[in-house]
Amino acid sequence: MFKFLSSLLRKYTGNSRRGFRRMETAGYRTGSFEALHHSSDDDDDDMVDIAGGTLDFSNSDDVPPLSSGVYEEYVAQPADMNGSSPTKLVDPLEDPLPGLGTYEDFNTIDWVREKSKDRDRHREITNKSRQSTVALLHSVSDAFSGWLLMLLVGLMSGALAGGIDIAAHWLTDMKDGVCLIGFWFNHEHCCWTSNETTFQERDRCPQWQSWGELITGTPHGAFAYIMNYMMYIFWALLFSFLAVTLVRAFAPYACGSGIPEIKTILSGFIIRGYLGKWTLIIKTITLVLAVSSGLSLGKEGPLVHVACCCANILCHLFTKYRKNEAKRREVLSAAAAVGVSVAFGAPIGGVLFSLEEVSYYFPLKTLWRSFFAALVAAFTLRSINPFGNSRLVLFYVEFHAPWHLVELAPFILLGIFGGLWGALFIRANIAWCRIRKSTRLGHYPVIEVLVVAALTALIAYPNSYTRMSGAELISELFNDCSLLDSSQLCGYKQPTNTSETGVGNSLADRPAGEGLYTALWQLALALIFKMLITVITFGMKVPSGLFIPSMAVGAIAGRLLGVGMEQLAYYNHDAIIFKGWCSPGQDCITPGLYAMVGAAACLGGVTRMTVSLVVIMFELTGGLEYIVPLMAATMTSKWVADAFGREGIYEAHIRLNGYPFLEPKEEFEHSSLAVDVMRPRRSDPALAVLTQEGMTVGEVETLVEGTRYSGFPVVVSKESQRLVGFVLRRDLLISIDNARKRQEGVVSASQLLFTEHTPPQPADGPPPLRLRGIVDLSPFTVTDHTPMDITVDIFRKLGLRQCLVTHNGRLLGIITKKDILKHMAQIANRDPDSILFN
Amino acid sequence: MFKFLSSLLRKYTGNSRRGFRRMETAGYRTGSFEALHHSSDDDDDDMVDIAGGTLDFSNSDDVPPLSSGVYEEYVAQPADMNGSSPTKLVDPLEDPLPGLGTYEDFNTIDWVREKSKDRDRHREITNKSRQSTVALLHSVSDAFSGWLLMLLVGLMSGALAGGIDIAAHWLTDMKDGVCLIGFWFNHEHCCWTSNETTFQERDRCPQWQSWGELITGTPHGAFAYIMNYMMYIFWALLFSFLAVTLVRAFAPYACGSGIPEIKTILSGFIIRGYLGKWTLIIKTITLVLAVSSGLSLGKEGPLVHVACCCANILCHLFTKYRKNEAKRREVLSAAAAVGVSVAFGAPIGGVLFSLEEVSYYFPLKTLWRSFFAALVAAFTLRSINPFGNSRLVLFYVEFHAPWHLVELAPFILLGIFGGLWGALFIRANIAWCRIRKSTRLGHYPVIEVLVVAALTALIAYPNSYTRMSGAELISELFNDCSLLDSSQLCGYKQPTNTSETGVGNSLADRPAGEGLYTALWQLALALIFKMLITVITFGMKVPSGLFIPSMAVGAIAGRLLGVGMEQLAYYNHDAIIFKGWCSPGQDCITPGLYAMVGAAACLGGVTRMTVSLVVIMFELTGGLEYIVPLMAATMTSKWVADAFGREGIYEAHIRLNGYPFLEPKEEFEHSSLAVDVMRPRRSDPALAVLTQEGMTVGEVETLVEGTRYSGFPVVVSKESQRLVGFVLRRDLLISIDNARKRQEGVVSASQLLFTEHTPPQPADGPPPLRLRGIVDLSPFTVTDHTPMDITVDIFRKLGLRQCLVTHNGRLLGIITKKDILKHMAQIANRDPDSILFN
Repeated sequence: MFKFLSSLLRKYTGNSRRGFRRMETAGYRTGSFEALHHSSDDDDDDMVDIAGGTLDFSNSDDVPPLSSGVYEEYVAQPADMNGSSPTKLVDPLEDPLPGLGTYEDFNTIDWVREKSKDRDRHREITNKSRQSTVALLHSVSDAFSGWLLMLLVGLMSGALAGGIDIAAHWLTDMKDGVCLIGFWFNHEHCCWTSNETTFQERDRCPQWQSWGELITGTPHGAFAYIMNYMMYIFWALLFSFLAVTLVRAFAPYACGSGIPEIKTILSGFIIRGYLGKWTLIIKTITLVLAVSSGLSLGKEGPLVHVACCCANILCHLFTKYRKNEAKRREVLSAAAAVGVSVAFGAPIGGVLFSLEEVSYYFPLKTLWRSFFAALVAAFTLRSINPFGNSRLVLFYVEFHAPWHLVELAPFILLGIFGGLWGALFIRANIAWCRIRKSTRLGHYPVIEVLVVAALTALIAYPNSYTRMSGAELISELFNDCSLLDSSQLCGYKQPTNTSETGVGNSLADRPAGEGLYTALWQLALALIFKMLITVITFGMKVPSGLFIPSMAVGAIAGRLLGVGMEQLAYYNHDAIIFKGWCSPGQDCITPGLYAMVGAAACLGGVTRMTVSLVVIMFELTGGLEYIVPLMAATMTSKWVADAFGREGIYEAHIRLNGYPFLEPKEEFEHSSLAVDVMRPRRSDPALAVLTQEGMTVGEVETLVEGTRYSGFPVVVSKESQRLVGFVLRRDLLISIDNARKRQEGVVSASQLLFTEHTPPQPADGPPPLRLRGIVDLSPFTVTDHTPMDITVDIFRKLGLRQCLVTHNGRLLGIITKKDILKHMAQIANRDPDSILFN
Repeated sequence: MFKFLSSLLRKYTGNSRRGFRRMETAGYRTGSFEALHHSSDDDDDDMVDIAGGTLDFSNSDDVPPLSSGVYEEYVAQPADMNGSSPTKLVDPLEDPLPGLGTYEDFNTIDWVREKSKDRDRHREITNKSRQSTVALLHSVSDAFSGWLLMLLVGLMSGALAGGIDIAAHWLTDMKDGVCLIGFWFNHEHCCWTSNETTFQERDRCPQWQSWGELITGTPHGAFAYIMNYMMYIFWALLFSFLAVTLVRAFAPYACGSGIPEIKTILSGFIIRGYLGKWTLIIKTITLVLAVSSGLSLGKEGPLVHVACCCANILCHLFTKYRKNEAKRREVLSAAAAVGVSVAFGAPIGGVLFSLEEVSYYFPLKTLWRSFFAALVAAFTLRSINPFGNSRLVLFYVEFHAPWHLVELAPFILLGIFGGLWGALFIRANIAWCRIRKSTRLGHYPVIEVLVVAALTALIAYPNSYTRMSGAELISELFNDCSLLDSSQLCGYKQPTNTSETGVGNSLADRPAGEGLYTALWQLALALIFKMLITVITFGMKVPSGLFIPSMAVGAIAGRLLGVGMEQLAYYNHDAIIFKGWCSPGQDCITPGLYAMVGAAACLGGVTRMTVSLVVIMFELTGGLEYIVPLMAATMTSKWVADAFGREGIYEAHIRLNGYPFLEPKEEFEHSSLAVDVMRPRRSDPALAVLTQEGMTVGEVETLVEGTRYSGFPVVVSKESQRLVGFVLRRDLLISIDNARKRQEGVVSASQLLFTEHTPPQPADGPPPLRLRGIVDLSPFTVTDHTPMDITVDIFRKLGLRQCLVTHNGRLLGIITKKDILKHMAQIANRDPDSILFN
């Protein structure tokens, strides 16, 4: 049984299973594109090749295209089919065959069909609900299953995020030292019960010992420092080694930030296992390890992937979502919102992030549900309280001084910096990823990660601003200096002459002191280091988010500029630009605000987020007051970055990987017509079509075997070329195969009919096979004169896979999503063969 | 010249100008539907009939379909057309005729065509920009014109909203009394310079005299009270009289909230003058008057209309937006966000309101721009500072106590109340509006307004909670009682035994005192009064918003429940439900929060807003803490209200007025096919089609005159019925007319050709007229088997006006938006003839 099944499976899914090999297999991108659409009988298809390593992938295939269980169930009761009399021609769709209407891996779903399927299902439930109470209850439970699912997604993601936060905190502290009263305590917990009175003292409580202290017996001295240094590097290497080997061994899809792939999946692509349970487990564990290893990466992007995995797994509890690819994508959109909500404690920002950045099809119902899920997740996270301050947000900031209109100039400057850095980063990172793909570097991901981790640890340790984690650094940079603040960044000279600065305002601008100058130098070095190391870190085979590193770069730049402005204002408060609003003894410039604006600008430059970025930042500060600076910087940053290339980092990675993603934001600017894009081209052989009558089963099989198209138009006759419908290769093969096995008298010479009425048959011939049921009688058509901008719009808005082209009512050709993407690549002078999938 | 023009105009626009009569003309809805599509030669078409009054409407027609200036310009230079040699057949589209591609009033735009036009324009500018510096500058200015426009919309709307606030405040106080040091001061301003020390004393400063005091000389006594009462009624009548007469005399479109019409306009409908300058001026003035008259209405909804008027007027400054209906609608979507932003001081909530409630086509670019405009408007409003507290928000609330999980039960109860009230209100209001439309009541709008105003003033004055304006009432109900609060609502008994209640917590729950009981009675009466009067107020011929009255009803109910809960907790703090979280001497229940939750629930029940409502409320309180109660109440309210009917108040009014609005939120549930909906029906005569060759000009004219369709399919031949394209009636008539006038030899016997190549012509015949240029060669088609749910989806997503239906490549029929709406009405057992426009 299984043998038959697997051979069947291979036959139908042959034109895509090769896609599994896609992942980073160097050299794959050239030449083997054509092979992608050929049936293949290789037996090693189940084995995935990842950059030198091979692993069995069947584990992570959470949604088998032809679930064996279902098929066997069907085979077990074939009486319905065989029992029907030969006069009543069997229409396979009356009893839907398993596998009909499902998709293969690395293929694009048909949104229209999926949504229509769901409406049919809903209609049926509604109709039944009028008949009995049980059916009514079923209908009600069906209506509320979406909300229940959202609740579960929120709870699970919130809990996971809390766990990740706590574990990462503990492991990060582990690099420094260990708690003597229990190694499972992190630094803060360890010193919680300590008797020291001041915050600073409490940080150095005797229960917590650094590795150097533990080994050498004294916390001071060069030897202790060196021991600390070495232990720091050791832990960094250990964590990163664990992370990369776990990823390679169990879930290759767990690497990276996941957002480019999630965008592609949400646009209708299928990557089986990308959101499966193995990916979830491994991503959660390795994310903690990667963050703790001190690499220049954040956990915010991967949290979106984690939340989407949760949603996808929970979808299996509900038939409505398990069986419908479109409905499932609605849930995934909400999950993306949940991910950002738990990452930043910003539910509204999360919803807008999903709407703006990730989602493709985002109906209003989903908006409301995502909001619900994002809130549930945020409150779950807060009840876990991983930051120990019962705050919802990652960085809580409170500024005291308002900003002045003149300050818009430095804010816009930060925007320009952010835009330049964003554009530069994308180019550099993509170039580096190309090198990784095309050279031998890509074959040694473990060594790459170890080298980068060692380099990072080696350089980062001596500088306290790079030694601390990215989130801590940002938090410190955002912070406004109070008088009691002991950090180096607040190392201002204490005012000695109180009469000059005014007694009332103890937060007034002060001259920079020794400590601050040291801090500035260290920050400048940290800036350069972060800028360089992030380029080579993002894209390695460990979970890695970009939010925190980008924000860190911006925050450092912003803080530097902010302190500069502050000192400028302090020493020149009579200058024309400061006069009137920045008199001596006033707190007129807030360097923390500059850091925040810079962080927003850099993040905006890299990701090209707009509204969602501003709203996330707004949720961090909580004051509408500061929206204007943030907005000015974000706008500038986007404009500047767009001038160098319109793609954000996620779109750039989507293109790098050749996913079939039709960017919803970008307008199609070229003036070509549908006839210029459609297949067959002038030089190609004519379009392979089926006629609604007159072809035999054998002829059809020969035609299908001889081509690699995933579907065929059905016409009235070859001469008239008038279109009847469209039939999918997969459905056709399954149905013929099934009929040959189960329907009496179906042989190669049988007529294959797609018509409604059976034409008179020769009396001695075999009975015809009727397959009208599998024909899509409402294929989308455009005329050959349709401008491509309109065609692209139709593809985007309706989520089409293919569209037929007619001229004066006659079928002329076909346009697939891939044809469009190839055409767009050609216009942009890119390699059209970089589009790998359909 | 003008005679000719106006006759021409009447001819082309004949099938819709009757629509002007639409407004409230009783009896119009029966029978005259067919007439709507007939050309008419009545000369009184320019006069609009409004409920008995007649006025010249040409003033408010801001966007004439055939602007006379343009046409004359064109006529003045006909040499281009006449000069062309007869061998080169003139294609009118080479020099686009004025009027081609524009729309008539009360018609639906073709989104696809408009967007395509804009892309063409953009492409042209981009191409030119490579040639010269001037063109490059033009291209840059074109790119930034959208942002400039947004800035202007924000500034103008913010300023207008500030003006409205100040004026309404002043006029509202005018009903009470007058400021002796200058009648232009409102109560607060008048007493600003007063020397009284306490707030309460300051309110009774000697400079401000109530009318009774001024007339009788003493502020106390029955006579003074009666004088005050009478003056209150007098001013209410005066203001409402002025409001209704101004609306009737100058801008009939200024009445109501405007949101249903704006929703319809944004979905692609054209109502000329609805967003014109007269509407803006009159709406601004009458809004102030209507609010001040004390009627149960708010200014929040109409502010959306005001902002949209600003946007529409400012669009005329930029060619890009003036000439393109689709682009203009993007700006209007942003303006709707601006309206809510200034109404509540909630920019993010405003953007979400526009996205969720009002907009139809809302690309991400618009999201970002609306956010910008909403912020600009909010900050403009703040710099005007109409509330005198430099707060951005309408009601600033700060709560001290957190809420407990047990309290979710009363919150959900409030949600149920809100849902019930919302459903009931919609039914009652629509029933009342139907009575107004169908009986003689509709003929006397002025008397109606005066009677309602008199009734409102008469009943409202004795009760202090109805006497104050809706916004003040809500503000007071939201407020948390502090110890110093002197309002009746805070009339708790002062704790005498401090040891019992705890010294530290002076805000602890206290037993209700005399004052509070009085307040509760008054509130209960106010609740009943508000519930009844709002039903008959909304829909009168004055600007009237629903937000404030709905919120007031909810806030009263919420406050009553809140105080009830508080007393219950105070007297039963040992009961099982209060134990553990509400010990004596603690401030455990916040009645203000209940009022807020109730307000959200009622507003949600009436409008069915979800996310935007929660976000607006969140922006008022500023604490994520309280989102959960708000969300619970809003969700419950929506579910309960939806159980009684899925339409919100705006959709109900759209349907009442018969606008062609295809609700984007509702799914099409029925299982019909395109063939069931298309025209012609089985019993109808065959579809009127043009053939691409073989018809003469005369034949075509006869065909067009004999039907009232707004467009005709072009086929290869009558026999084959193979589709070539679609031509609009208006374009066809304009082109033939123009050719007859300007092209030599075009007579009725001339061949009308839509083909690409000219077939051989008889040597002696007149030269043919070639009109391929006006044919839309890419009409949308679906097959007859397409399920209607998919068809509806296509109409919604692409914004189609019509779609052709084919079967096996042959043209079968046509589906228009109106056909779909009629079909939907039929399914819902409603009168399909209630859909008035196409």
